[in-house]
Amino acid sequence: MIKRYLEAHQKAIQDALLALMEARDTHARVAQAMWHSISAGGKRIRPILAIAATEATHGDVSAVMPIACAIEMIHTYSLIHDDLPAMDNDTLRRGKPTAHVQFDEATAILGGDALLTLAFEVMASPEDSAPEDLTKRLQIIQLIARAVGYQGMVQGQMLDIRAEGRHLDLDALIHMHRLKTGALIEASVMAGALFGHARQHQKQALRSYAKNIGLAFQVVDDILNVVGDPGTLGKAVGTDSSRGKNTFPALMGTHEATAYARDLVQNALNDLQDFDTKADPLRAIAQYIIERKH
Amino acid sequence: MIKRYLEAHQKAIQDALLALMEARDTHARVAQAMWHSISAGGKRIRPILAIAATEATHGDVSAVMPIACAIEMIHTYSLIHDDLPAMDNDTLRRGKPTAHVQFDEATAILGGDALLTLAFEVMASPEDSAPEDLTKRLQIIQLIARAVGYQGMVQGQMLDIRAEGRHLDLDALIHMHRLKTGALIEASVMAGALFGHARQHQKQALRSYAKNIGLAFQVVDDILNVVGDPGTLGKAVGTDSSRGKNTFPALMGTHEATAYARDLVQNALNDLQDFDTKADPLRAIAQYIIERKH
Repeated sequence: MIKRYLEAHQKAIQDALLALMEARDTHARVAQAMWHSISAGGKRIRPILAIAATEATHGDVSAVMPIACAIEMIHTYSLIHDDLPAMDNDTLRRGKPTAHVQFDEATAILGGDALLTLAFEVMASPEDSAPEDLTKRLQIIQLIARAVGYQGMVQGQMLDIRAEGRHLDLDALIHMHRLKTGALIEASVMAGALFGHARQHQKQALRSYAKNIGLAFQVVDDILNVVGDPGTLGKAVGTDSSRGKNTFPALMGTHEATAYARDLVQNALNDLQDFDTKADPLRAIAQYIIERKH
Repeated sequence: MIKRYLEAHQKAIQDALLALMEARDTHARVAQAMWHSISAGGKRIRPILAIAATEATHGDVSAVMPIACAIEMIHTYSLIHDDLPAMDNDTLRRGKPTAHVQFDEATAILGGDALLTLAFEVMASPEDSAPEDLTKRLQIIQLIARAVGYQGMVQGQMLDIRAEGRHLDLDALIHMHRLKTGALIEASVMAGALFGHARQHQKQALRSYAKNIGLAFQVVDDILNVVGDPGTLGKAVGTDSSRGKNTFPALMGTHEATAYARDLVQNALNDLQDFDTKADPLRAIAQYIIERKH
C-alpha cells in the first residue's frame, strides 16, 4: 500500500523534475551534472512528505509539485556538496559515481550551487494570482531557506565534519542531526502544511511529527550503515565506524538504537491522532521509515 | 561627487549586512566564514546599482536595501566558490586571505552555500502587504535566481574554467562574461527597476544600460589585471596571463580594449538619455567603471 504510494509519487516527482530541466538547455556540462545527481533516484522522502502534508491538510496536491521538486533539488545539492573530497569524500551515491567522480570537483561544486539556485527559481515562479497564495509562497521560500541555511542544514553539516574523530554525547548528536537532516525534513512537512490549509494546532502537531520522523530517519540510517546490505543500499556500509563518525548505534548499541527509532515513530503517529484519513500517507511514511532496508 | 555617493552607500550596505547577520548566531564557524568574506569590503557595485536603478525609476530607495544586501551576498558566495582550489585557487581577495585559506575548504564551500541561501531568505522575508509588492518580490527572486543559476552566472563560471588554456574568440569571450559577471549586474539593475516604477520602455533601456556596463566592467577588470597596482587592487596582477586566461587585452591589445570599454560606457550613457536627473547616479556609476583603479 505505502509501497505503491511511494512508487507512484517517486515516478511523478521524477517526471516533474525532468520537465523542469528539459524545458531548458541540458547540453551544458553543469546541467548534465545536475541531472546526473538528481535523476539517480533515491527515496524522494522529502518531496513526498511535502505532498503528503498538503494532502493531510486538505490542500491542492497537484499544485504543490513544484515546491516538492524544489525540495528534492535542495536535498540533492546538499548530497553533492557533502560528497566532495573536502567534505565526506564519498565516491558512490545511490549506486552511481558521485558528481565529482563522474565529472570533476569544480563541476560538482557548480552543479550543487545551480541546483540550490534553481530550487528558489522554481519556488518563486509566480503562477498564482490570489494574494493569499503569494504570501504563502514567500513564507514557504523563507521557511525552506531558513531550514537549509547557516542556522540549519549547513550548520549541521559543519558540526558533523568538525565532530569526526571527536566523541559527541547523545544530546550533541541529536542536535547535530536535527540540523543536518531534521531541518529540511521538518521544512518539507511544514511547506506542505502551509500550502494546504493547516490550522494552528495542526501546524504544531505536524512540526512535532516531522521532528520525530526526521530523527528516526537518521537513527535508521546509522543502523543501516552497520547492518545494511551494500547492494540494497546502493552505497558502502561500515563507513561511519571506519571514519570514527558519531552514530546512534555506536553510542547506544544497535539494539537500543532500534528501540529508540521505534519510540520516535510511535511519537510521530501519536502526533497525528487528531487528523482524519487524509493523513494516512503521513502515517504510512512514519512506519516505512523503520521498516526500510535502504 | 560619485565618490561620495559610492562611499555613503558602501557604508549603508555594510551596516545593513551587519544588521542582517548580527541578529543571528555569529559564533558558529560557518557564520564567521560568511562574515569574513562579506565584510571584506569591495566596491558593492551590484547592490549600489540596484539602489540607483530604484532611484532612477522613482522607487522607495530605503525599502530596496534588503534586496541590495541579498545581491551582495550572492556576489560574495560566487567569489568564495570561485576562489576554491578546485576552481581558480586564489589565496587573496580584497586584500584578505580567501575563505578557504583563512578557514578551510569545507568551511568555504559551506560558507558560500549559506550566503546564497541567506540571500533568498532575506529576499523572501514578507514585510510588505500590498499584493502588488508581493508579486514584485517573487518576480525579483525569480529574476535573480535565473541570472545566477546554470543558465547564467554558474554557466559562465563553468565556461571560464573550461576555457583556461584554450583560445576563445571575441564572441565566445563576450558570451562567457555576459553570463559570468554580466548576468548578475543586469539582474541587479532590473531588480531595482522592478522595485521602482519602471515602465516597459524604461525597463528595456535599463536592460541595455546594464548589459553595456556589465561588459565594460569586465573589460576594465581584465585591463587592471595587466596594468593595475596590486596594492590598490588588493589582489595580485598578471595572474590572468600566467594562467593562460582569455582576456580582452590579450585578444585585442590593451589600447584597443580601453577604447572598447569607453564605447560600451558611452552606449550605456545613451541608453539613459530619456531618464531625468534621478538617473544621475546610474550615469556616474557608468563613468566610474572606466575611471576606477581597483
